[in-house]
This record gives sequence, C-alpha cells and structure tokens, in this order.
Amino acid sequence: MKVLVTGGAGFLGQRLARALLARGALKSEDGKRQPITELVLLDVERPADFGDSRVRTEVGDIAERSVLKRVIDDKTDAIFHLAAIVSGQAEADFDLGMRINLDASRLLLETCRQRGHRPRVVFTSSVAVYGGDLPDVVQNDTALNPQSSYGTQKAIAELLLNDYTRRGFVGGRVLRLPTISVRPGKPNAAASSFASGIIREPLNGEEAICPVTGSTRLWLLSPRKAIECLIAGCELDAAALGNQRVVNLPGISVSVDEMIAALREVAGERVVERIEWKPDPRVETIVGSWPARWDTSRAEHLGLSGDHTFTAVICNYIEDENVHVV
Amino acid sequence: MKVLVTGGAGFLGQRLARALLARGALKSEDGKRQPITELVLLDVERPADFGDSRVRTEVGDIAERSVLKRVIDDKTDAIFHLAAIVSGQAEADFDLGMRINLDASRLLLETCRQRGHRPRVVFTSSVAVYGGDLPDVVQNDTALNPQSSYGTQKAIAELLLNDYTRRGFVGGRVLRLPTISVRPGKPNAAASSFASGIIREPLNGEEAICPVTGSTRLWLLSPRKAIECLIAGCELDAAALGNQRVVNLPGISVSVDEMIAALREVAGERVVERIEWKPDPRVETIVGSWPARWDTSRAEHLGLSGDHTFTAVICNYIEDENVHVV
Repeated sequence: MKVLVTGGAGFLGQRLARALLARGALKSEDGKRQPITELVLLDVERPADFGDSRVRTEVGDIAERSVLKRVIDDKTDAIFHLAAIVSGQAEADFDLGMRINLDASRLLLETCRQRGHRPRVVFTSSVAVYGGDLPDVVQNDTALNPQSSYGTQKAIAELLLNDYTRRGFVGGRVLRLPTISVRPGKPNAAASSFASGIIREPLNGEEAICPVTGSTRLWLLSPRKAIECLIAGCELDAAALGNQRVVNLPGISVSVDEMIAALREVAGERVVERIEWKPDPRVETIVGSWPARWDTSRAEHLGLSGDHTFTAVICNYIEDENVHVV
Repeated sequence: MKVLVTGGAGFLGQRLARALLARGALKSEDGKRQPITELVLLDVERPADFGDSRVRTEVGDIAERSVLKRVIDDKTDAIFHLAAIVSGQAEADFDLGMRINLDASRLLLETCRQRGHRPRVVFTSSVAVYGGDLPDVVQNDTALNPQSSYGTQKAIAELLLNDYTRRGFVGGRVLRLPTISVRPGKPNAAASSFASGIIREPLNGEEAICPVTGSTRLWLLSPRKAIECLIAGCELDAAALGNQRVVNLPGISVSVDEMIAALREVAGERVVERIEWKPDPRVETIVGSWPARWDTSRAEHLGLSGDHTFTAVICNYIEDENVHVV
C-alpha cells in the first residue's frame, strides 16, 4: 500500500509518518491490513525521512498540478491531506490562504479524480468552520458559520470533499480537529498558537504571552490522540460513514484558567509565573468565535476517542517530547 | 448608477431588467434613490435590450477574466449575479457546473475586489444547499448538507460571498430562492423543471410529465415575487444584515397534488388531464432531498414577502404571460 502525507514536514505530518512506519500497515477499503510499502511525504521544505527505506520525500508547491501528479499515482491508496495555511496567516494573506487551503485541496481532489481509482482522502478541518451565535454544545448538524477566511476555506474544502465522495471520485473522510495542544516546537501564526505556548514555553523555562482572558474556553485535543484519530479515521468503514463524511473529533473543554491550574499541578507555581497576560483583541475575536464544546457522539460511535483530562495531556507532552522541566 | 445583471438573457434576468428599467432607480448604499444610468446585461447569448438606450448588452463567457473586467468597472454599483448551470445539468456535467457555478462566481468576486470600490453583489442561491435528515421547518441556522453538485457549488459560493463581504471586498447579499414556479418558456435541465411544466404545459394545451409522486412537497416562489425580492434584497440596509448575508426568501409549501388541485380550480379537469405521471427516480432523489418549508421570519423582518396561495400564483402566471387557456 502506498500512502501520501501532504504537509509531511510539519509537526503533525512528521508525527503521523512515524506512527505509520511503526505500525507498518493500514487497513484497506475491504478491511484487510496491508503493509505500507511506500510513504510519500510532501512539503515545501524537505521532510525528515527517518532513514527508513519506505519513505520518499518530495519538495514542492502543493498548489502546482505537476507536483500533485508526481505524488499521486494509481497505486496511492490513502492520502492524509494536512498541508494548510494556518488561521492567523490566512487572515493576514488572503490570496495565500485561498491558494493553499482552497485551490490546492481542490487540485488534490481533481488529481485523484483523474487517476480514477478512488483513493481514500483524509482531510483535517477545524473548529474555525463554526462561529456566530453558537449553542453551548455544537451538534453535528449545527450550521457552519465561519468568521475567518481560514474557516471559510476549510468549510469549502469540506463541501468539496463530500461531493467528490458522493460522486465516487474519492473516498473522503473529513476530521474536524479541536485545537491541538500541546504542540511541540515554536509558536506559529495560528490564532490558537498560545494554546500550546502558554504550556510549552513555561515548561521549557521561557516566558509566554497569553493574549486572551482566563475565562476563554477552548476545545482541545492532544497530538497523541490526534494522530490516533487520523489513522483510525482513514480506516473507518465507508458504509458506517454513509454520505456525510464529516466527523467532529472528541475534545476536552477547558478554560485558559483551568489549563494553567493543570500546569501548576504538574509543574508548580514557579513555572506558571512565566506566563504574562497581554490581551490581543485580534486573537480574542477569532478564538472567541470558535465553539468551546461539540457533541462527540458520532465520533465515539465510530470508535474515535479523545483525551480524558488536560493534566494527562501535559504529562503526555512531557513524556513524548522528553521535556526536562526547569 | 450602473447596474450589471449576469445571466441577463435568462428568464429571470430579462424580467429583472424590465423591472429595473420600469423602476428607473435603485437605492444606493446610503439609502438614497439613484437613477439607473446604465444597465449591463451579460450572457452567453445576446440578451434583448428592449430598445432602451440605458441597456448595454454583452455576450461572453462569465468564467473568462477578460469578460468580467469588461462588464465590471469602478462605476458598477450593483451586480445581480444570476448566471448559473441548473441542477440537473450540473449533476450531468460536473466540470461545467464547477466552472460556472463556482469558478465564475469567485472570479466575479475577485474582479470586484480588484476594482476596490466595494460594489453590492446580489447572489441567488437555492433550496438545494440543504439535504439529508431535515427538520419539518428548516431554520436559518440549519446546517447546509447539499446532496447534489449544484447544491454544493451554491453553498460554496455563499461561503465565499460571506467572507468577501466580511473582509470589505463587496457588499454581498445571498438570497436563497425557493423553487421558482410558474416559469414561462420551455422545460430546462433543472431537476425542478416539472414544478413549472406540470402547470405551464397543460395551460398551453400541451402534455406534461410529472416525474414525482403527488405527495412530494415543494417550496415555491412565483417569478413576480422573486423579482420583487431581488430588488428589495439589493436595497437592504447593510447594517440590518450584519455579517450573515444569507436570507432564506419566503415561499409557500405545497404538495404536487395541491398544485394540481389549484390548476383544476383555475382551468378545469380537461387541462389537468394533460398531465401524465411517470416517476423518475433520478429527479425524485434530488428534489426529495430539498426542504419543503423553511423559516421565513428573517426575510419578513427585513421586509421581503412571498406569495399567498398557489392558486394566485397560477392566476399571476396567466396574466403576466398573456396565456390563453385552451
């Protein structure tokens, strides 16, 4: 089985690649486990290949037709389409967001359609497709009402993926991710970057800025669980999904104050004191438009599970990233 | 004031043009009535110009950038974007539907953005953006769940129009139209074509085929009221609309049996006998996925009104089209 990961140099892409290589196999559409013979990692910068002979790294612009033709052939069984321009950047650079989040996603689906063998496409969407006056718990049939260009582009790609699936061009699965926390690495241009930064930086002995008030509620999923859900999502039985290919992944609803209390519990007051409060209305507006909780019954029915407590999420981050708390 | 109508040779486009010319003026964004000095009608075939010196007809492919640049300049105050590939045709020819219903709509918004003067864009959407398990009365915040490529393309264009409006590139208004009935002219490739055909053809002494069962419920708006709503929609106060630019226009919910009973009431049994029942599962599937009624409170609050009875709709059709019932 040949597998493609777009955004393969990114944090989720690299972690997914390692998980797929360790697993060595994926269930195919007929439910049988097939060995992964080739794992193609595509990104704008060269992804790590882990010295594994099954990995083929490709550098290219995903909005270019020729690049997609090079990485998707009629042996490609499963595609994890993670490449994206994050929320803050898509708001700052409208054209770039449209080009990568919309045009490239459509071109990927078109390339699959032209190949004609109906590969599975796992697409990651976001809390940002929701907005406006939301119920306390967002339901699977709550209307999409994005309040950012990023959310708009993700919502459009969801609609395309559903229609390309309905028409039999691809076998689509849209997984709406909660905000991922705790991400390792550096802050990025996502409006939600702080949701990792306020935990990660203090644990690593650095100052962090919190741009929202402590009562702001977030809907979070750990990287560990996100990777498990991506793989399980790819293996989901098409019949169980039916024509509606969007699944809201399970999250935990926590306020920023509760996140910080969990950090205090794990690492102590000295670490928490490295957080500086500095409200940024731009971030508050975008993040405040997202749902703080959604109904997870469909995901659970399909066998997809999330985290239990944010304290455990912090502990997993420390373990997974070999953090030495200072 | 300069006004553009795309799909200007179509049935709604021509009727809208006549209504605008008769009115002679439109309210501008500041609420003041401004005379219409130029009315540009664009279509793939030459629209009628009614011998009116204010009308400029343009023939061209709306998915071509150069065509849009020719018809939208920085004097264009209001655009009625009616050009579309209808539901049945968009399902039969996927690429054509994507090109006209999605790409051309986006190109139109991009052309406005590049001009930079934030023209008003009135976009017509459809019942076809809804689908799946629907409540008896669809609400403004019922999730979009299109079951056809046409509905998908309309839903995507709605999302784009909302975001282009939020960013200040255009002043968008999306009017979701019920199925229009009774349309004059010939049957077309819309899945809902029969909703006019079963009234129009019998009144004109011709046989008509009804492809759905009598209990099928439709959500209908007459051409007369549709034109009134398009003009009123353009003139709506931006502040009253806020960031959510989609308005579900009022309709009447009638079953096919009730439509035929109204026809019998107006024209007699002899006319009704010209309808032949011939179920077409393809049409039943598409039409059956559409809502039979939606909440109209927002439209009414904004001052947009629909029809009262389907009997009146038939009488208006006979009057407007000078039909001599045979």
